[in-house]
Amino acid sequence: MKNLVRKNILNLTPYIAGKPIEETKRELGLKEVIKLASNENPLGVSPLAIAAIKKNLSAVNRYPDIQGFCLKKKLARVLNLKSTNILLGNGSDEIIDILIKTFVQEDENIITADITFLEYEIIAQVNGRRVIRVPLKYFKYDLAAMKKKIDKKTKLIFIANPNNPTGTYVTKWELQDFLRDLPESVLVVLDEAYDTFIDVDDFPNSLGLIKDNKNILVLKTFSKAYGLAGLRIGYALGEPELITYAERARQPFNVNSLAQAAAIAALDDKKFLQKTRRTILEGKEYLYDQLNKLAVAYVPSVANFILLDAGKDSILAFKEMLKYGVITRDMKQYGLKNFIRVTIGTKKENERFIKIFKKVIGCR
Amino acid sequence: MKNLVRKNILNLTPYIAGKPIEETKRELGLKEVIKLASNENPLGVSPLAIAAIKKNLSAVNRYPDIQGFCLKKKLARVLNLKSTNILLGNGSDEIIDILIKTFVQEDENIITADITFLEYEIIAQVNGRRVIRVPLKYFKYDLAAMKKKIDKKTKLIFIANPNNPTGTYVTKWELQDFLRDLPESVLVVLDEAYDTFIDVDDFPNSLGLIKDNKNILVLKTFSKAYGLAGLRIGYALGEPELITYAERARQPFNVNSLAQAAAIAALDDKKFLQKTRRTILEGKEYLYDQLNKLAVAYVPSVANFILLDAGKDSILAFKEMLKYGVITRDMKQYGLKNFIRVTIGTKKENERFIKIFKKVIGCR
Repeated sequence: MKNLVRKNILNLTPYIAGKPIEETKRELGLKEVIKLASNENPLGVSPLAIAAIKKNLSAVNRYPDIQGFCLKKKLARVLNLKSTNILLGNGSDEIIDILIKTFVQEDENIITADITFLEYEIIAQVNGRRVIRVPLKYFKYDLAAMKKKIDKKTKLIFIANPNNPTGTYVTKWELQDFLRDLPESVLVVLDEAYDTFIDVDDFPNSLGLIKDNKNILVLKTFSKAYGLAGLRIGYALGEPELITYAERARQPFNVNSLAQAAAIAALDDKKFLQKTRRTILEGKEYLYDQLNKLAVAYVPSVANFILLDAGKDSILAFKEMLKYGVITRDMKQYGLKNFIRVTIGTKKENERFIKIFKKVIGCR
Repeated sequence: MKNLVRKNILNLTPYIAGKPIEETKRELGLKEVIKLASNENPLGVSPLAIAAIKKNLSAVNRYPDIQGFCLKKKLARVLNLKSTNILLGNGSDEIIDILIKTFVQEDENIITADITFLEYEIIAQVNGRRVIRVPLKYFKYDLAAMKKKIDKKTKLIFIANPNNPTGTYVTKWELQDFLRDLPESVLVVLDEAYDTFIDVDDFPNSLGLIKDNKNILVLKTFSKAYGLAGLRIGYALGEPELITYAERARQPFNVNSLAQAAAIAALDDKKFLQKTRRTILEGKEYLYDQLNKLAVAYVPSVANFILLDAGKDSILAFKEMLKYGVITRDMKQYGLKNFIRVTIGTKKENERFIKIFKKVIGCR
């Protein structure tokens, strides 16, 4: 039946997700498992979001609001934009799909980095679109090299900022240089899934850029700092005209009604967000400290995860930690042979990670 | 910026959804509004599903199970199939998208009816694929005419059974004739979103067909009888090899975790499902009776909605009923000028509908 399938589908390497807690318990017969593999919020779910979900439970027999009317209105107020600047998606994954479908013709190409969020390339391949992958430089997006790769057929450029899995970022000055004299036929997508954790001054002001530059789209998500990964909700921000076109490629009921309600409430939960940010920043300091003491090389991160050199085969390190009930992410699919990526967790989780990591690398 | 957009996106007519209750209240200043527009379950949500959602709430900071492991296992048991026969989607809408992406090449075509579920054509257009629409015959899929339209470039055939918005169905004999000597290069998709409401003996046994015929896929949904439209979950059933290919085009976290938990519980709630079925069948008898008395023409339906001749312009009839707080569906987008579609509701809702419908058509 293989002959019935499109070649681009047969050829692609599917996404490998972080191993789930329940699955790990089941397979290894473990009782205590911590997951530091998918950059989720270690504090759980915002209490306000939980309350909002409960309040909306009895209406899940009804289709979701096709427009996301209330959520867009809320987001517009919070971000000081208009509802017409916003496109909602079933996670950022779906937004990537929508943007490719809306804008990239059959013979056009997409540029991104070689070591970055895997879904840009996978979703492009599913849609039969060509991706040009430009190598990172010192673990960072090499915008100058990417700019040189732009040709007449380039339509979309995906920049994960901060980048996943490296945690590095492009500065506002680097982005400014990159955007200068860019062809008007190119759309730049800044994927800011991890924006809440930024603690540097030279990070680009992307919302300001949208107002000045019609060819920029910004992706945000409720899956990380807002603790709603399980509900699937992300969004794109951009010029209303661009958003209107993308809306045409969106499926009407793509964002479920509980996600809409939870997201509205999560935006109000400043306390939860602040506590999340503090937990991540403090945890990062702790992990840096410990890794420094162990003389383990890592990439300084502005996100809620750290890419580090395990000093041995990535999958081996991952599996050894897994035996002790600590789920990290091996970096084989990203082409980083000896690295693992660890999500910054709660204080207790970070301590547990360090304890087990020491065993795995043979230190004490 | 229009020149940045793909032509197929610019040319398409977006889906128009049933008007939401809250929006209607807001716009018309009404307190009591009933929605009989989107074929939702009028009894609300299964209590078991609600309990399951509550139980899983505190883990929505985690990504959903990428495989839908537990739900597939449950479905396999209920349907007497294997987990490998099942593809899960963010509603059937997404399944349609996945099937087109997986199987339909750029130059291939899709066949369906002219008056049927609108998303087949819309999603095909979004993906830049050509759709051949074959006219219904006496409000029914004309399988013989559709078969004649199959050419070397035909890859997918969508058959909504029962059909939406007509409520008609193709019999097992008609389907048997249709499937006989079909080219092996063609995949037939039977969309059985409304299967729970079937009360006839000659409806096709699609699960049996899957076992015998590798080129059939069956779509099912939790949005109708199972009362989970707001959570977005549908699935496809088919030969494991076909499903494996389609899995490659699926986004990893497409089905949210609360939908997975709710669906598992809803499958266990036989009481809710039976009550739903009884409500629809009794409501249908009542509505038939009343419409007969009014000498209003309608299409006999095996689903949970009735297509009827309003005797005046579809949008006018829809709007007049709306003023009284009764939301039906105008059929303009389907090309049925004088028809409206009404979802069978609770006893009280059906009575209210008839009362208002009488006013609108000038009877008493």
